[in-house]
Amino acid sequence: MEKPVVGIVMGSDSDLPVMSKAAAILEEFGVPYEMRVISAHREPDVFFEYAKGAEARGLKVIIAGAGMAAHLPGMCAALFPLPVIGVPLYSKTLGGEDSLYSILQMPSGIPVATVAIDGTKNAALLAVRMLAISNPELLEKLKAYAGKQCDAVQKKDARLQEVGYKEY
Amino acid sequence: MEKPVVGIVMGSDSDLPVMSKAAAILEEFGVPYEMRVISAHREPDVFFEYAKGAEARGLKVIIAGAGMAAHLPGMCAALFPLPVIGVPLYSKTLGGEDSLYSILQMPSGIPVATVAIDGTKNAALLAVRMLAISNPELLEKLKAYAGKQCDAVQKKDARLQEVGYKEY
Amino acid sequence: MEKPVVGIVMGSDSDLPVMSKAAAILEEFGVPYEMRVISAHREPDVFFEYAKGAEARGLKVIIAGAGMAAHLPGMCAALFPLPVIGVPLYSKTLGGEDSLYSILQMPSGIPVATVAIDGTKNAALLAVRMLAISNPELLEKLKAYAGKQCDAVQKKDARLQEVGYKEY
Amino acid sequence: MEKPVVGIVMGSDSDLPVMSKAAAILEEFGVPYEMRVISAHREPDVFFEYAKGAEARGLKVIIAGAGMAAHLPGMCAALFPLPVIGVPLYSKTLGGEDSLYSILQMPSGIPVATVAIDGTKNAALLAVRMLAISNPELLEKLKAYAGKQCDAVQKKDARLQEVGYKEY
Amino acid sequence: MEKPVVGIVMGSDSDLPVMSKAAAILEEFGVPYEMRVISAHREPDVFFEYAKGAEARGLKVIIAGAGMAAHLPGMCAALFPLPVIGVPLYSKTLGGEDSLYSILQMPSGIPVATVAIDGTKNAALLAVRMLAISNPELLEKLKAYAGKQCDAVQKKDARLQEVGYKEY
Amino acid sequence: MEKPVVGIVMGSDSDLPVMSKAAAILEEFGVPYEMRVISAHREPDVFFEYAKGAEARGLKVIIAGAGMAAHLPGMCAALFPLPVIGVPLYSKTLGGEDSLYSILQMPSGIPVATVAIDGTKNAALLAVRMLAISNPELLEKLKAYAGKQCDAVQKKDARLQEVGYKEY
Amino acid sequence: MEKPVVGIVMGSDSDLPVMSKAAAILEEFGVPYEMRVISAHREPDVFFEYAKGAEARGLKVIIAGAGMAAHLPGMCAALFPLPVIGVPLYSKTLGGEDSLYSILQMPSGIPVATVAIDGTKNAALLAVRMLAISNPELLEKLKAYAGKQCDAVQKKDARLQEVGYKEY
Amino acid sequence: MEKPVVGIVMGSDSDLPVMSKAAAILEEFGVPYEMRVISAHREPDVFFEYAKGAEARGLKVIIAGAGMAAHLPGMCAALFPLPVIGVPLYSKTLGGEDSLYSILQMPSGIPVATVAIDGTKNAALLAVRMLAISNPELLEKLKAYAGKQCDAVQKKDARLQEVGYKEY
Repeated sequence: MEKPVVGIVMGSDSDLPVMSKAAAILEEFGVPYEMRVISAHREPDVFFEYAKGAEARGLKVIIAGAGMAAHLPGMCAALFPLPVIGVPLYSKTLGGEDSLYSILQMPSGIPVATVAIDGTKNAALLAVRMLAISNPELLEKLKAYAGKQCDAVQKKDARLQEVGYKEY
Repeated sequence: MEKPVVGIVMGSDSDLPVMSKAAAILEEFGVPYEMRVISAHREPDVFFEYAKGAEARGLKVIIAGAGMAAHLPGMCAALFPLPVIGVPLYSKTLGGEDSLYSILQMPSGIPVATVAIDGTKNAALLAVRMLAISNPELLEKLKAYAGKQCDAVQKKDARLQEVGYKEY
Repeated sequence: MEKPVVGIVMGSDSDLPVMSKAAAILEEFGVPYEMRVISAHREPDVFFEYAKGAEARGLKVIIAGAGMAAHLPGMCAALFPLPVIGVPLYSKTLGGEDSLYSILQMPSGIPVATVAIDGTKNAALLAVRMLAISNPELLEKLKAYAGKQCDAVQKKDARLQEVGYKEY
Repeated sequence: MEKPVVGIVMGSDSDLPVMSKAAAILEEFGVPYEMRVISAHREPDVFFEYAKGAEARGLKVIIAGAGMAAHLPGMCAALFPLPVIGVPLYSKTLGGEDSLYSILQMPSGIPVATVAIDGTKNAALLAVRMLAISNPELLEKLKAYAGKQCDAVQKKDARLQEVGYKEY
Repeated sequence: MEKPVVGIVMGSDSDLPVMSKAAAILEEFGVPYEMRVISAHREPDVFFEYAKGAEARGLKVIIAGAGMAAHLPGMCAALFPLPVIGVPLYSKTLGGEDSLYSILQMPSGIPVATVAIDGTKNAALLAVRMLAISNPELLEKLKAYAGKQCDAVQKKDARLQEVGYKEY
Repeated sequence: MEKPVVGIVMGSDSDLPVMSKAAAILEEFGVPYEMRVISAHREPDVFFEYAKGAEARGLKVIIAGAGMAAHLPGMCAALFPLPVIGVPLYSKTLGGEDSLYSILQMPSGIPVATVAIDGTKNAALLAVRMLAISNPELLEKLKAYAGKQCDAVQKKDARLQEVGYKEY
Repeated sequence: MEKPVVGIVMGSDSDLPVMSKAAAILEEFGVPYEMRVISAHREPDVFFEYAKGAEARGLKVIIAGAGMAAHLPGMCAALFPLPVIGVPLYSKTLGGEDSLYSILQMPSGIPVATVAIDGTKNAALLAVRMLAISNPELLEKLKAYAGKQCDAVQKKDARLQEVGYKEY
Repeated sequence: MEKPVVGIVMGSDSDLPVMSKAAAILEEFGVPYEMRVISAHREPDVFFEYAKGAEARGLKVIIAGAGMAAHLPGMCAALFPLPVIGVPLYSKTLGGEDSLYSILQMPSGIPVATVAIDGTKNAALLAVRMLAISNPELLEKLKAYAGKQCDAVQKKDARLQEVGYKEY
């Protein structure tokens, strides 16, 4: 298996169902990745070592998903010099607005690329776009992917025109 | 000067005017403290060392103020085993709701004692109350402080009764 | 049974399932506690007597949980001179934002240590941290607890590396 | 001077400019009132005595204004059996949403009549309406007041029709 | 049957389950009431006639419940000179915040006494308090009601002390 | 079948159940319409062609429903010179507030007529009102529709008066 | 002067500066309009007569601006059968979110076309688009207006390319 | 001058002061860029041509800033296959929450990398990080930049320790 270039990290295994969607997209695009459960709060030393060593181990992008007072993406961005994509996870009491603000509102100097609440699929597509900057093959795959998205909507519309909304 | 038992930390010197109110209260109660500008995002190594060494250096409570995607209090609580008090600072665009959620909504296992947005004075009073658990002298000072607060309101009310609201 | 040092209070027995998590943590740490259903609104005299007498009866910390227009924690803090920890409880119509603001936004002079919405477990851990300021045995227990949290995450990660996310 | 039937209370003299508007309306309607600065948080004993004795002293309605974690109106309603009108005061960091939720979201059993944020004038008019239930003279004054409000708008409209919006 | 002194109005029969709680309280206190389904939006003429004639027909208080862009309470207050109590009803998409703002934020001159979202029971208790201003019998009933509330909480606490939280 | 004068568009077939309510209203009023699944994001060229050609093909009004970062209504309004009605659709994580702001807060120069979250029925009624400006027959139908709405509420109220709320 | 086809109404003359922008746009497009200060709350009879008579007097569209608990647009839509455009006005304490929800969240059956907070200019452009459905001359003017908007942006961009952002 | 690899676009020249901060960062890192004022709403054809041709012209990343119902970043991401960074701009009435949701909450398939409200500087740093994936020289510059940020905080802290907070 190829050396991973994208790291998918989350603070708890309860985030796995949502975060797995990122893995599925990366597999579809043939991008090697690793997936880790690492908590910045519960095991700060393990986390520090992971984030500081990520670039040397060959990671080009980190996708970090976290909920509530979500510090994982921002702390990754403080320790890893390449792009970090933050996925604010839906939270039971505040619906993910807590996760969103904790990830998005980074102070000047330490950027995190934030996607929609539970937007794991887009996080992975964003990672692919970043890698495609210097990888023409990935760029072609992205264009093909866009084409397929377009076709899928057109087929649905065609069916609606054919059968009408009552039958659809 | 006595060895500090409370650490007041903030990520930027622009937070100093608000955070200084905590220092003033601690001085009023005779509690030795230290005040540091340390950024979890901009100098993660310095921060790690500070938070991990705090207990050994004699700190009993840390008051951490931070704005926007505020990770300082939560990361302190991950590295320091005694109480951490978080002060969510008012932020220009989201009014401090971002700071609040980033500090308050800590996941189970890593508690942060959160006070009101810009509630620095209460943060310091809370630290004094924590220390007063095992310090009868501080407890007496707290009771005297409460008495003075009560008197101050009564004096204002007395004046209002005397002069009426139009003169007040 | 030992004399309680932590008081857990709530305004209604419907809050018991959430508030019980605090009791479980205190038991785990061997901290003697009492648990009371007392309403500041429905029985103000009973409440007043309870809060004013708490220090004399030996309580060192009060954990007060309340929902909606939550006045219990703040009124405890007005009457009890040692630390009060407020737990904003999830509310049906406003999701606990009402409880949160009613507890967190205390005016200067009367601090309440607020934790996350329904963050009862963290409330108890925070009480333990406060007591650990002057109790080295509790401090050791806290460090051991942190170690176990760390191990638990590492085991989950190890299993993920072993079986992959599809099997997990 | 007549015995007051409405009590206007606030927790701090800084609320006086906003709360005075209630006094002005009560004066306009000839309703005797008292105005007090009493803090439920800073002087709980004074407050308790005030609220518990209010009915015996002849008060029929209490208008309580408070900001941030506003407990004054709700605690009044717990201790005073007749109507309590709560005025949520504008707060610097959360714009009064904290005050609003702390006053409005009272649990079942203890009602507070809440008006708009800083809606002091309406609080007084509401008190007058309550008293007018059994006071035909006040009811007539309310109808006259409504008539004057109607005339005032019509005059403005007439002027707009006359001079046009550019001149207005 | 006695002539009604309280009018309970709502815009749709789907509001009946929530609004009925007001009727139950009024029955408990022996206050005669009427209950109507009247829409300010769908039948403005019917509504106008109802609200304008309410005082002459003997109503002393109107309790109006409404959801979403809730205009019923405010328009009642514009047409009826005595107290109007507004109940913001929970709404599917915005959770009742739309109903709340539409009822609470009345402009100066036209007061509505707003209670909590879905706070129908408190709306009725507030109406009883208003009527009790000039009705000593109702005042006694309110005091007895408060006493029963107090007893109920104390019984729950006594049981908790007896059986412990695990058995409760 | 008559040439459509209203276009109902949505970005995904998952919006069909909510958007179909608009079609049902237009059928009730006899207004010819077309219904399309077209995504501004996934097939921008198809969308551009659709929106730019809509006026020439005879459309007088476009009803565009969209959720989350909802760009469909605003982009329609940029390309189609006649009225565009935007329906913000309920979204899982933010309840439709994201959809609402993305549609409502159009910058000066490009208006979108926004209705309530999931307010598809009102969107269609608004389209009918727009067409009725120059279509007296539709205007008559609108008045009849209003009359029926009024009758329906009155029947419900009559039944409530007859059977009481417990039987209703 | 021509008979007005658009009515611009507002509840208070303090809304005039914002609402006047609608008048300016209508003048630019040569659409005859009337502008009135009418309060649904302070003069319900005057308002009722105005809204019920509007269609007979020749109005085709009403633009209603209102702030706080904004009932004017919705009540217009209940009484006037043709399109009503609601402009939620910025409010001091809640920033216009109160106005927005009071106007936007109309129940099924009574549509209001809502524009952005303080979006008066777009309200007028929307009215013009509605009238343009049956007025080819207005449609041409709208297209010319769009062309001018496009040119204006292009000129700014050209200047930016010429002088650079530091000089701009 | 070198061929631009980053495109900075905004919908209005009023956004220039905030967006210029991105240009300054790119200049500091020696990354060639272009800066354009292009409105997706006011000149959709110009915008379409720009976004569709961007990749062919050599752009690797687009930074799009927009306020209110902000469609520019999302529409760029629909037409340009490489990374798009969205900057939600502060808006007068809703404080930028409207801009944020319009940019962040993109549906699955079309990712936008969102930064903090008015977070232009971080947007540019994020673009540099993306380019640094395949540009070791930029990576070194990023590390040096991080080092300078760290030093700057340490100097401030040193000064605070030296002069104390009262002198600072």
